[in-house]
Amino acid sequence: MPFAQPCRTGVGIFVVGPNAGVRMASVRIREAKEGDCGDILRLIRELAEFEKLLDQVKISEEALRADGFGENPFYHCLVAEILPAPGELQETCVVGYGLYYFTYSTWKGRSIYLEDIYVMPEYRGTGQGQGIGSRIIKTVAEVALDQGCSQFRLAVLDWNKRAMDLYKALGAQDLTEAEGWHSFCFEGEAMRELAGR
Amino acid sequence: MPFAQPCRTGVGIFVVGPNAGVRMASVRIREAKEGDCGDILRLIRELAEFEKLLDQVKISEEALRADGFGENPFYHCLVAEILPAPGELQETCVVGYGLYYFTYSTWKGRSIYLEDIYVMPEYRGTGQGQGIGSRIIKTVAEVALDQGCSQFRLAVLDWNKRAMDLYKALGAQDLTEAEGWHSFCFEGEAMRELAGR
Repeated sequence: MPFAQPCRTGVGIFVVGPNAGVRMASVRIREAKEGDCGDILRLIRELAEFEKLLDQVKISEEALRADGFGENPFYHCLVAEILPAPGELQETCVVGYGLYYFTYSTWKGRSIYLEDIYVMPEYRGTGQGQGIGSRIIKTVAEVALDQGCSQFRLAVLDWNKRAMDLYKALGAQDLTEAEGWHSFCFEGEAMRELAGR
Repeated sequence: MPFAQPCRTGVGIFVVGPNAGVRMASVRIREAKEGDCGDILRLIRELAEFEKLLDQVKISEEALRADGFGENPFYHCLVAEILPAPGELQETCVVGYGLYYFTYSTWKGRSIYLEDIYVMPEYRGTGQGQGIGSRIIKTVAEVALDQGCSQFRLAVLDWNKRAMDLYKALGAQDLTEAEGWHSFCFEGEAMRELAGR
């Protein structure tokens, strides 16, 4: 299924990315609304493709709407959008997202888990701590502190050195490396067998 | 601080564990109540000691009460308790727990994360899939299916071969081994620095 392409890339008006042009557009990080789910799904798929695991994506826009925007949401989401420069006809477009939820450490209490963070390649900054991705991470850290969380976690693929280096540079610890934690998963069939169904 | 010892061990009345005696006591897996938080904290500390990471436990009974039993709980918990045999004077006692919460996969939707699972050593079964630990895991799988979750995850230390073998035997996949996922964590100071506070 082809996805909508809300962002006309390559027009050279953005302040972010290697092709940043002269006219200034700005980036806004904000809480996602239900109407963003189409864009979020587009970016989820792009991220999974980058991670070489696109075949694992089974989520639908309807599920994202139902699970994130009901009375007891299963997740929260931030989106990064590019606002057009004054006078520009280009529409506002969503170019990145950070999807998180609250978890609980029996050692340290309330925590946040950043399930996904993604910025479209053409909107990525080159400086450490200055790009859209870093702004999303900083916003998650603010939410975490506001909610009394003592830590925030995320998972990274071992070959994604760029991401690993960024998180380490920002002060994160690799718990798999330092303490030997492995992530285990029971998928649908194993789970049904466990439950005897 | 010494912990209360609600279970008089070694009296040989239990059906579980290597010293299972003749008279039959039974094991019940049930949802935790606020009044269980003292027992849960005792077991959290035992588990952390087993994991050789006891110094990392900063949680208090008050925090467990506030975070698990308010209007929007940060976690849910199952406890395993030994019910005395008929006529026995021994009190009911909590000998294991499984603490979980709901998470979200952008690939597969609603998920459950089993943060901790622990059974006191003297109450552990020897058979695969028959012990108290396995009963807790099965109950979590039932909750997961009832809530429309497509997977359930947990983390294991790489030297804990017994646990790894059990989870694999029950059908779990080691995602760190199979796909290379590493767990990263921003602790308090790194988080505050990120948020500029």
